[in-house]
Amino acid sequence: MDWTLRRRGREMTAAAGKDSPSPSPVRGTPLLKDELDIVIPTIRNLDFLEMWRPFFQPYHLIVVQDGDPSKTIRVPEGFDYELYNRNDIKRILGPKAACISFKDSACRCFGYMVSKKKYIYTIDDDCFVAKDPSGKEINALEQHISNLLTPSTPYFFNTLYDPYREGTDFVRGYPFSLREGTPTVVSHGLWLNIPDYDAATQLVKPRERNTRYVDAVLTIPRGSLFPMCGMNLAFDRELIGCAMYFGLMGDGQPIGRYDDMWAGWCIKVICDHLRLGVKTGLPYIWHSKASNPFANLKKEYKGIFWQEELIPFFQTVVLPKDCTTVQKCYIELSKQVREKLGKIDPYFTKLADAMVTWIEAWDELNPSGTAAQMLNGSSNGK
Amino acid sequence: MDWTLRRRGREMTAAAGKDSPSPSPVRGTPLLKDELDIVIPTIRNLDFLEMWRPFFQPYHLIVVQDGDPSKTIRVPEGFDYELYNRNDIKRILGPKAACISFKDSACRCFGYMVSKKKYIYTIDDDCFVAKDPSGKEINALEQHISNLLTPSTPYFFNTLYDPYREGTDFVRGYPFSLREGTPTVVSHGLWLNIPDYDAATQLVKPRERNTRYVDAVLTIPRGSLFPMCGMNLAFDRELIGCAMYFGLMGDGQPIGRYDDMWAGWCIKVICDHLRLGVKTGLPYIWHSKASNPFANLKKEYKGIFWQEELIPFFQTVVLPKDCTTVQKCYIELSKQVREKLGKIDPYFTKLADAMVTWIEAWDELNPSGTAAQMLNGSSNGK
Repeated sequence: MDWTLRRRGREMTAAAGKDSPSPSPVRGTPLLKDELDIVIPTIRNLDFLEMWRPFFQPYHLIVVQDGDPSKTIRVPEGFDYELYNRNDIKRILGPKAACISFKDSACRCFGYMVSKKKYIYTIDDDCFVAKDPSGKEINALEQHISNLLTPSTPYFFNTLYDPYREGTDFVRGYPFSLREGTPTVVSHGLWLNIPDYDAATQLVKPRERNTRYVDAVLTIPRGSLFPMCGMNLAFDRELIGCAMYFGLMGDGQPIGRYDDMWAGWCIKVICDHLRLGVKTGLPYIWHSKASNPFANLKKEYKGIFWQEELIPFFQTVVLPKDCTTVQKCYIELSKQVREKLGKIDPYFTKLADAMVTWIEAWDELNPSGTAAQMLNGSSNGK
Repeated sequence: MDWTLRRRGREMTAAAGKDSPSPSPVRGTPLLKDELDIVIPTIRNLDFLEMWRPFFQPYHLIVVQDGDPSKTIRVPEGFDYELYNRNDIKRILGPKAACISFKDSACRCFGYMVSKKKYIYTIDDDCFVAKDPSGKEINALEQHISNLLTPSTPYFFNTLYDPYREGTDFVRGYPFSLREGTPTVVSHGLWLNIPDYDAATQLVKPRERNTRYVDAVLTIPRGSLFPMCGMNLAFDRELIGCAMYFGLMGDGQPIGRYDDMWAGWCIKVICDHLRLGVKTGLPYIWHSKASNPFANLKKEYKGIFWQEELIPFFQTVVLPKDCTTVQKCYIELSKQVREKLGKIDPYFTKLADAMVTWIEAWDELNPSGTAAQMLNGSSNGK
């Protein structure tokens, strides 16, 4: 693999935070500075980063350019980044590039694959810094990191929400044996202003805005599925990254806008099986622009039908006991998708194939560590 | 049964709200005025009601006097109430009074039994009106009623919390077939100031106060248990009341302070089975006084051990398909308690018996309607 193809942006200067024009620079050493990449899928210049400068500049960015690869994406000065367009993806993955979607934000998962860091934060380029009720700018990344570095509690609901947060704890009646919690691998953040509605709801409530700041983080209980939105999402790439596949969406596919949902359902089933935790709630970002509901309806149309069968499928998936790693779980899940969802539409057979290809590609780009060891069986056999 | 034993307080005057000294009188006709009773267990004069006057005065109160029955409990003027002390309970229930705890707030469930209303709100007498972040007094009852009158969503998690609340909805990816929700039968409210901690946590964190106002209501997902606190709780008596039994606690029993927890675990398992919903979150009340952690430790001591076996029991309880009513579910649950928890301690055999007695007593006091019909089999057989 030709790693010189990685186009690197300017090296971040140590003093960058200090010189920043923003009113809220990150003080001290940023958390997980060398252990987290920020993945941004985009088709446009990344001017939105200006607002994020005080928070993101210390980190490395992975930009996944969607659409026309001949277009130049401008990244504001001072950011440390690498950028991949469609041609890069094809060059790096060869025929396996087929598993990476085109003309859909699902392409972002290529960034997860090429990262070498333990953690990923991914954000859409129409998301800006939100303010908390006191008017203070929210450092979304810092909150995500805090969510990821404290345990989850999927086995019993704590009515005062995240018990690891300053100023709170487990309430009376919470079994002591469950208070250690379980590792958190996903932190799902929310959105002020434009809520993440489907096309139908957008059409019915074009003016609805989310103005409610809910000051809570909570664990999604075991056995419960949730709609995972990719707009403001952080995860532990090392522990769960290879299942964070955003599927086949957009160009040449019968659906779009179900990329993050698909990943969320797969992830949750695997987390429940492997006793890993998923949190949702804080931090909020400011989602600036509603996408076109008519265009969305076209993309979502089939998904709206299909999800009625997908949810019961994911609610009843059982992973065998010998699925002891994320890779094994994911390969097993792909088999069940092929077998049980293939009947709905040939698309799901194609998707099941892509799930296997994704794991193979992941393994190729991440040859050391558990991924390769785990996949010896399944990827060699193909 | 001698219903003349019911001691009625002064009739509420229609103008009471208007004459109230409180700054926030309830305007218009109070919600569910003739369909909701407020149940208060107490050992002292109910001066705390003064603060609640603008919110509670339109409703009927059921006061369950714990401890010394010769003591006179003063209820502030203008409230419409009935009061029961231990002697009343014995007179009304006869030998079945054994299922009602003494010297523990568990006695409150007698109030659920004698109510003739569809809804119950129960509150502790050390709970006062809390303020929201804007400084406005919170009408806890109004919020509970709103929680109960809108559906729950236990089958899929909505990341923007209660989708039926003004200004929010189901997010993208939420299956349309699940958007009707399921009837809400429990609304579990929270507490500002003194959090509901167990004795151990109280001892470790004597100064911790809950100052975080989380502006959310959410459904506890199916399959997830939670620690239900009885301090600020509303429920649909008609749909779930006969399972809202607070167990054997306090005087003559080996534990205390697990009354509401026990009820919550039973309720949740039955709600999951019967497809009924449980919500938690808003409203907050102001919990004024921490109980003595040393006294609490003595009461909770055995519970802390036992709950480690109770939770796995409730997490794996399976109710048979022919348990189609709350009564049938509860009787079945009592059998499983006897069979599976009886081994832990003879207390659980006694508790299982009390569960059956409770249902029989419920049936006796509520002879018409589903309760009696459903219990024909089980209560006649005894």
